[in-house]
Amino acid sequence: MSQAIRALFFDVFGTLVDWRSSIAREAEAVLRPLGYALDGLAFADAWRAEYQPALEQVRQGRAPFRKLDVLHRQNLERILPRFGVALLEPAMAEQLTLAWHRLDAWPDSSPGLQRLKQRFLIASVSNGNISLMVALARRNGFPWDAVLGAEVAADFKPKPRVYLSACAALDLRPEQCLMVAAHASDLSAAAACGLRTAFISRPHEYGPSQGSPAPHGAVDFSVTSLEQLALELGV
Amino acid sequence: MSQAIRALFFDVFGTLVDWRSSIAREAEAVLRPLGYALDGLAFADAWRAEYQPALEQVRQGRAPFRKLDVLHRQNLERILPRFGVALLEPAMAEQLTLAWHRLDAWPDSSPGLQRLKQRFLIASVSNGNISLMVALARRNGFPWDAVLGAEVAADFKPKPRVYLSACAALDLRPEQCLMVAAHASDLSAAAACGLRTAFISRPHEYGPSQGSPAPHGAVDFSVTSLEQLALELGV
Repeated sequence: MSQAIRALFFDVFGTLVDWRSSIAREAEAVLRPLGYALDGLAFADAWRAEYQPALEQVRQGRAPFRKLDVLHRQNLERILPRFGVALLEPAMAEQLTLAWHRLDAWPDSSPGLQRLKQRFLIASVSNGNISLMVALARRNGFPWDAVLGAEVAADFKPKPRVYLSACAALDLRPEQCLMVAAHASDLSAAAACGLRTAFISRPHEYGPSQGSPAPHGAVDFSVTSLEQLALELGV
Repeated sequence: MSQAIRALFFDVFGTLVDWRSSIAREAEAVLRPLGYALDGLAFADAWRAEYQPALEQVRQGRAPFRKLDVLHRQNLERILPRFGVALLEPAMAEQLTLAWHRLDAWPDSSPGLQRLKQRFLIASVSNGNISLMVALARRNGFPWDAVLGAEVAADFKPKPRVYLSACAALDLRPEQCLMVAAHASDLSAAAACGLRTAFISRPHEYGPSQGSPAPHGAVDFSVTSLEQLALELGV
């Protein structure tokens, strides 16, 4: 740790916000009035299950880079028939797609970011697009210095350029940047680029009975809340 | 005005910050201890005079896109001999280049942005790079939703793609976005892209006796402070 950490980069889905229960609530709010007796949590899980395969098409160069909103919309069209929803008007499909702009934060996220910002630059380094990140920041009080990540890099994590372009945007070397995430693959990719890593356990990301996925490989910090991270970083 | 304005885009140098007196102060602080009896204001004017020609090389495709910090450093090397500074150690030249990260805001900028943010998305759409924008925001309390502009677009204003990429990043049509600037050329380029425009007069940008440059062509708003703009927008 000879190089002081200057910036903290944050994954968002699962790490800062509870996408699963938020999407369940939003999907039910949109679809139940249309007569679909939906299991919102199953719907959220199905929608999220299409996420990595869609991103992988872009990562491997088989599809051009597009905003996550666009991929969310395509994935929505794929899962709707499985839930018995055959037709959805475009305006309704768009409103449902933007459910991802209306996710609620874990309770420690906003106060933790406010505290960490006193000492460090803080930026989102998410696969979500800029407008989605701005909406979540507005909704939940995330005081970003900058919105970096996939849309700025025109590729998706865990491709190295997403991490490295975030460091470059702030004129920092990778070892001056700490990637904070609840997912092992995000952290191991960041570490391979030379960033420091902090694992934050979010045991309820996939529901109450799933436990917490442990990081594989060494991480610099392993915490259960952003406030614990702030303490460990001496803020 | 059938389309409601959703986002405000801000030019920064001259519009929100007083680059001239800040650079004069910073240049004197760096160079006078080295024995150079500097006229800081003349130095600031000379440095800024190299700005548009350097950007124009990039706009016309004769030079690759680079961060403004890099161009500021090159421009610094060009003007130093004119002020009798033949050699400057690289670390000192870098410190002086980063004077552009230490600019002070006009008094109404931060309170005006805070107020406007209550109703609108606010983003910097400057030719400055992301790290420079982040530094000025930290220093002056600019509460950006997002840092957009040249580095995200990989080109410099007044090229259309800088304005249009800012609209696209927020999923907005140009007519939903209002460009705020103290410079006529910035506003006429934004208007040509379909954005709304607000001229803010900054009569002291080039010194106390320069008067205020008027916009050429029609603008949607013409104000003397961000607080007046907030009033006219009904915030």
